[in-house]
Amino acid sequence: MLPFERVAIIGMGLIGSSLARAVRALMPTVRLTVHDADADVRARVLALDLADDVTDTAAAAVVDADLVVLCVPVRAMRAIAESFAADLSPGAVVSDVGSVKGQVLTDLGAVLPKGVALVPAHPVAGTEKSGPDAGFATLFANRWCILTPGPDADPAAVARVDAFWTRLGANVETMTPAHHDMVLAVTSHLPHLIAYSIVGTASDLEGVTSSEVIKYSAGGFRDFTRIAASDPVMWRDVFLTNKDAVLDVLQRFSEDLTALQRAIRWGDGEFLEALFTRTRAVRRTIIDAGQDTDADDFGRPHGS
Amino acid sequence: MLPFERVAIIGMGLIGSSLARAVRALMPTVRLTVHDADADVRARVLALDLADDVTDTAAAAVVDADLVVLCVPVRAMRAIAESFAADLSPGAVVSDVGSVKGQVLTDLGAVLPKGVALVPAHPVAGTEKSGPDAGFATLFANRWCILTPGPDADPAAVARVDAFWTRLGANVETMTPAHHDMVLAVTSHLPHLIAYSIVGTASDLEGVTSSEVIKYSAGGFRDFTRIAASDPVMWRDVFLTNKDAVLDVLQRFSEDLTALQRAIRWGDGEFLEALFTRTRAVRRTIIDAGQDTDADDFGRPHGS
Ligand SMILES: NC(=O)c1ccc[n+]([C@@H]2O[C@H](COP(=O)([O-])OP(=O)(O)OC[C@H]3O[C@@H](n4cnc5c(N)ncnc54)[C@H](OP(=O)(O)O)[C@@H]3O)[C@@H](O)[C@H]2O)c1
Ligand SMILES: NC(=O)c1ccc[n+]([C@@H]2O[C@H](COP(=O)([O-])OP(=O)(O)OC[C@H]3O[C@@H](n4cnc5c(N)ncnc54)[C@H](OP(=O)(O)O)[C@@H]3O)[C@@H](O)[C@H]2O)c1
Repeated sequence: MLPFERVAIIGMGLIGSSLARAVRALMPTVRLTVHDADADVRARVLALDLADDVTDTAAAAVVDADLVVLCVPVRAMRAIAESFAADLSPGAVVSDVGSVKGQVLTDLGAVLPKGVALVPAHPVAGTEKSGPDAGFATLFANRWCILTPGPDADPAAVARVDAFWTRLGANVETMTPAHHDMVLAVTSHLPHLIAYSIVGTASDLEGVTSSEVIKYSAGGFRDFTRIAASDPVMWRDVFLTNKDAVLDVLQRFSEDLTALQRAIRWGDGEFLEALFTRTRAVRRTIIDAGQDTDADDFGRPHGS
Repeated sequence: MLPFERVAIIGMGLIGSSLARAVRALMPTVRLTVHDADADVRARVLALDLADDVTDTAAAAVVDADLVVLCVPVRAMRAIAESFAADLSPGAVVSDVGSVKGQVLTDLGAVLPKGVALVPAHPVAGTEKSGPDAGFATLFANRWCILTPGPDADPAAVARVDAFWTRLGANVETMTPAHHDMVLAVTSHLPHLIAYSIVGTASDLEGVTSSEVIKYSAGGFRDFTRIAASDPVMWRDVFLTNKDAVLDVLQRFSEDLTALQRAIRWGDGEFLEALFTRTRAVRRTIIDAGQDTDADDFGRPHGS
């Protein structure tokens, strides 16, 4: 039995359009209604045939839905949910894919009516691209999806959202919003912050031209530019809504970087080699856990 | 006409063994003699048939060579060059592939005899792997190779080393060792330092277990682990020998990161979005310059 029969997706960017494609591929009998605020995107979604219906308003999309998934930047969620709250069917489940969960639980909880279950979720999967053409059906396959229901969440609704993501090929975990936000601050938000920062630094140095930075980027820098090419609005919202956890891990990172700086200044080769040996082992565990490819250089093409 | 006819490679790790394979593939009539300090590696090189001769000492490898290429960590070069200096043929050219050039020019210049030309080089190409099995013939194809001859270098020797790398498919540039070391501090050494640091930080936090870090690493962290899996000894030597330039750009990075931290603390969304928009554009120029693949997520496999 399908966990949901009439799904509405609000926001047809990378994640929303991937979700639509995955639902189409893996639950083809689900009736899928989608909305995007941008008329050009709606036209594109129709042209790509990603849904049964494309509506001009979010409210029109949710009317019959038994599951509504918000796929917009974190700080845009509350206003959109407010705009459709009155149109939700009784018994509907509302979920989302936002990269920050504490704020989403608060924001959506504040505007959703009684009788509607809220089950926030975060599929830990993505690419650096945006928009409806960037999505693909296998994005969530074999990736983790974290559910962060509030303390009063309806267990039946949580189980259905779990079943939904499992059907899409994801591995589902549940944790508190606060713990999610701390874990993701480490594994995702800090790495993005650092990448944005280093790409910014490298682009405005005296002494080294930006064409030199581009030319010799294969030495390591180009990896950071991929992450730092991620959607600006999405990431602005992540940092503004997960401020405390991000500042916390950033503080730790700065201390560790200062220790490394000191080791370089004083020529402490043992310190450096010991750290680098330890970090090499971390890579091994990530590959063994199936979280990355073992192909050299991510399997990038060489010699072409 | 071949730029060199008898090439000796000292050190058969990732770069040395890639160079051997590339020479075999693209200049098959060159007589190739190689040495590695490790007997197991020498046996492996024989088994893989990567050279015409494998010698037990560096001195034995260089005897007849008209080109000797040192492919060992930067701080190991001087002692090895000292060990074979007396055995070099008059007119031989000595080069290397070290990631730092100022120190190499000084170290090799101090021990090489008169009548031997020194032309340091750095192919800006690599992977996170080490050892003779990690190499491949196309590593240098379409990548940059930077020559950093000293002020008194023999122009004819420089032209021959240029021709050698061009034959291997690389695009050759020439610059001063000091400028090389500053450019690479930005495009390679700082990114590696940051990656090592963040992987270290993430592995010892309270509140987030390391198995959680591994599990949810697809959010961005796993990219950093690839870089932080690079050879510990090689990178120790890079930081110890390019200390000034690395500390300089690290200082700039720290200032920029502090500005970002401040923007997050004060909720300055405009600052964040403006930076993230600028860095997204840098990615575009790297792809347009042919320095990286445009495939989503580096073309990593999805859904497998
Ligand atoms: N990218 C990732 O790697 C990733 C991974 C996991 C979760 N997420 C989360 O997924 C969500 C969507 O991200 P994405 O990567 O799919 O981004 P995206 O490709 O840029 O798509 C963003 C979508 O949100 C809509 N939107 C933006 N601002 C809006 C506003 N003020 N009001 C209404 N709609 C608005 C956009 O509509 P228009 O068409 O009008 O622009 C678009 O449909 C975010 O919450 C993000 O945190 C992202
Ligand atoms: N990896 C990259 O991405 C990259 C890119 C461009 C340039 N480079 C430069 O290429 C050089 C070699 O790096 P690699 O990546 O090929 O490293 P690798 O795979 O670890 O190989 C290192 C080689 O150096 C030898 N070696 C290490 N310490 C030695 C010592 N004290 N005395 C004698 N031989 C020693 C090793 O011999 P054993 O077999 O005995 O261990 C091995 O043959 C370094 O100077 C590096 O800066 C690297």
